[in-house]
Amino acid sequence: MTVYLVGAGPGEADLITRKGARLLAEAQVVVHDRLIDPSVLRLAGDDAELIDVGKRPGGANTQPMINELLVALGLRYSMVVRLKGGDPFLFGRGGEEARALQEAGISFEIVPGVTSALSAPLAAGIPVTHRGFSSGVTIVTGHAQDGSTLDISGFVDPRLTLVLLMAVSNRERIVAQLLRGGLAPQTPVAAIESAWTPSQRVVRGKIDTLASLEFSSPAVIVVGAVAALDLCDLRSVASLIS
Amino acid sequence: MTVYLVGAGPGEADLITRKGARLLAEAQVVVHDRLIDPSVLRLAGDDAELIDVGKRPGGANTQPMINELLVALGLRYSMVVRLKGGDPFLFGRGGEEARALQEAGISFEIVPGVTSALSAPLAAGIPVTHRGFSSGVTIVTGHAQDGSTLDISGFVDPRLTLVLLMAVSNRERIVAQLLRGGLAPQTPVAAIESAWTPSQRVVRGKIDTLASLEFSSPAVIVVGAVAALDLCDLRSVASLIS
Repeated sequence: MTVYLVGAGPGEADLITRKGARLLAEAQVVVHDRLIDPSVLRLAGDDAELIDVGKRPGGANTQPMINELLVALGLRYSMVVRLKGGDPFLFGRGGEEARALQEAGISFEIVPGVTSALSAPLAAGIPVTHRGFSSGVTIVTGHAQDGSTLDISGFVDPRLTLVLLMAVSNRERIVAQLLRGGLAPQTPVAAIESAWTPSQRVVRGKIDTLASLEFSSPAVIVVGAVAALDLCDLRSVASLIS
Repeated sequence: MTVYLVGAGPGEADLITRKGARLLAEAQVVVHDRLIDPSVLRLAGDDAELIDVGKRPGGANTQPMINELLVALGLRYSMVVRLKGGDPFLFGRGGEEARALQEAGISFEIVPGVTSALSAPLAAGIPVTHRGFSSGVTIVTGHAQDGSTLDISGFVDPRLTLVLLMAVSNRERIVAQLLRGGLAPQTPVAAIESAWTPSQRVVRGKIDTLASLEFSSPAVIVVGAVAALDLCDLRSVASLIS
């Protein structure tokens, strides 16, 4: 009768929290997104039932169906884990799932996770708020959560790093919006694909070449001066302001 | 000869990553900030040396001294953990420590953590990017990292949730800046003090009353429509847009 809304972290099982790992080992049922790393799923017990509810283009798993499934499982089992990539509430629609459980009288508990929005840049050696380069960070998604088109041209601020999630397929439109919003065409960008997994890839460029860079989903895109940094590369580090 | 820059997570030891916990157990020396929860420090082995380098008003630990200490320890020991609250690179100056190690030829590795910026709001039931309420989140600090005064009046955007770190002592100035930047005086705010610890406290109000709310450091301040939500409170949840 408890559903745990657990963040899986950004990639391999090493980066889930201790609490998330313990709950996975105890769960009777694990309801998970499509892109959870297999190493994380292996933390579940041998007897646990794993249910993939990943949304696919044209697929049957809509958010209301997932909410209903969680309620049904919460009524039947004593211990259910709802495992979501990164952090369950940063564009993860965990709030909607929590609400559905709450309304059905099913107890739930939230376990935060390491978000890809900040840790994927780190995997590429990019500190999103490096002193002298950035006063803060804005995190937005390339898809509006209701499926409509979000205009991010108003989010351009040269003092802030911009992190874009779920923006790979929309990048041409996003580049146009950012340039229209006044972003300098030479602003550095980096895309981190499959961060914190063995297949991690990093590509870098400028905003006006982002559309032609080759990378694919899942990827996190960083826009701003920090995107040119690589803490693990001495030539880049030498350029850091001390 | 390796220094691990490890995020401790937002509070109790349950919310550090599996990798962070394992490295702590193996470390010969742990160099930590002042506000790390004691339960996290207890993950270190009995033989490990713990060094508190927390910066205090008028205290002796400056960032360059911490950088030098890490280099000296990295030269002497095979396994050093530098443990920082939340995530080590979100205003954590981890980038500067990584640079100092890099320049001294000492290998280092980054282990991300659950950031307080997103998980402290969750501890209060606040999903910072809840659909229909917010299109994204901007995270800034109430102290400029070089000690100067940062003007955040330009960061007001009603479509984005604003999360303020290290802003408790400057809140009067910050409120004035946000109102000057056009933020509506009735905008909800929440302050989460000591999130994810037994002494957690949440206070809520409106931006024009923030200065008179009683809370103290460490606290995370959330500004925006989502600050009125509490996923764990049915009355609040009933107001959520479906």
